[in-house]
Amino acid sequence: MASTVRVPQEERTRAMRARLLEATVELLIERGYAGTTTTLVSERAGVSRGAQLHHFPTKAALVVAAVEHLTQVRGDELARAAADVPRGVRRTRAVLEMLADHFTSPVFTAALELWVAARTDPELLAAVAPLEQRVGREVHRLTVELLGVDESQPGRRELIQATLDLARGLGLANTISDDRRRRSRILDQWAITLADALAEPTPGASA
Amino acid sequence: MASTVRVPQEERTRAMRARLLEATVELLIERGYAGTTTTLVSERAGVSRGAQLHHFPTKAALVVAAVEHLTQVRGDELARAAADVPRGVRRTRAVLEMLADHFTSPVFTAALELWVAARTDPELLAAVAPLEQRVGREVHRLTVELLGVDESQPGRRELIQATLDLARGLGLANTISDDRRRRSRILDQWAITLADALAEPTPGASA
Repeated sequence: MASTVRVPQEERTRAMRARLLEATVELLIERGYAGTTTTLVSERAGVSRGAQLHHFPTKAALVVAAVEHLTQVRGDELARAAADVPRGVRRTRAVLEMLADHFTSPVFTAALELWVAARTDPELLAAVAPLEQRVGREVHRLTVELLGVDESQPGRRELIQATLDLARGLGLANTISDDRRRRSRILDQWAITLADALAEPTPGASA
Repeated sequence: MASTVRVPQEERTRAMRARLLEATVELLIERGYAGTTTTLVSERAGVSRGAQLHHFPTKAALVVAAVEHLTQVRGDELARAAADVPRGVRRTRAVLEMLADHFTSPVFTAALELWVAARTDPELLAAVAPLEQRVGREVHRLTVELLGVDESQPGRRELIQATLDLARGLGLANTISDDRRRRSRILDQWAITLADALAEPTPGASA
């Protein structure tokens, strides 16, 4: 029955754009930025070249839209993961697990491809940099909230930033070799050290 | 006078190879992996196409040799920087500065380009992965030595690894925006937290 219902043009357009952006992200993960050609994207999405070029006239236009799409996906994934973090004594370790999962996920890999390509491509950089900042602020805000950190206290903000940079570094390391076991041990120790430092009146006051 | 001295063939070959590898690394930094073409490399190095193809028949052969060259350069730079780290109360902060300098240097940027390209290129990965492991082990060993850490104590090894992953994450963040000030504040706090944790009988024993 459903197939006989006429789908409004607007909705079909939205679905087609979504398929093109999903295909772009998938190809970034599988083949990297250089290997993500507009031809492959249209094939993967099952969209004609003409229709694709109508919506995204250049690779740059397609990729910039994919960056925005990816930012949305990363934000949604994080918010969902944050809602699932258990409370209790293992809270800090669970938050670190959530962050490590984020920075080792396929969408981080796609973002990394765009990030590195943007370094030498000013047009792409103009799109990537502000969105990357938005994701960065969002991850920071979520982490502060989940850990119940008072950032007005000295050193707290920097400890959260260090935690996020650590997670980003672990994500980068994971791209060329699966180092789940190493990562797990590092996060076990970091959870202890971070919880200790955050519990002190001033982190490092005992030094 | 020197110009009239006959330079042995072997030495000229070595100098030519060095120029080709230096040019490859420079182009990786300026244009990224995809933008590093063999034509640009021969132009930049001032080496004929024929001579270049004789030494490095393919882009892969050239890049793999450049990876090895880069590994050597990174090792030498680190060893030099390590020798210059001052002793005294600010030792930990100075070691962190050295690590951050390494992971935000142009040679790290070149390595990052190869790293990300290797993710989707099995031939390149086969060359990059073992060399990256070698650099990783070397940086780890140097850091342990500089900080005088006893890794047989529980949690110590993981704290050093976390420090290196943090530095790698800071390096990645720095590639698309100069965040020297943010980085400096993070390292100030991390120096305090790390020194505290390393000074405890067992890191986190107070938790």
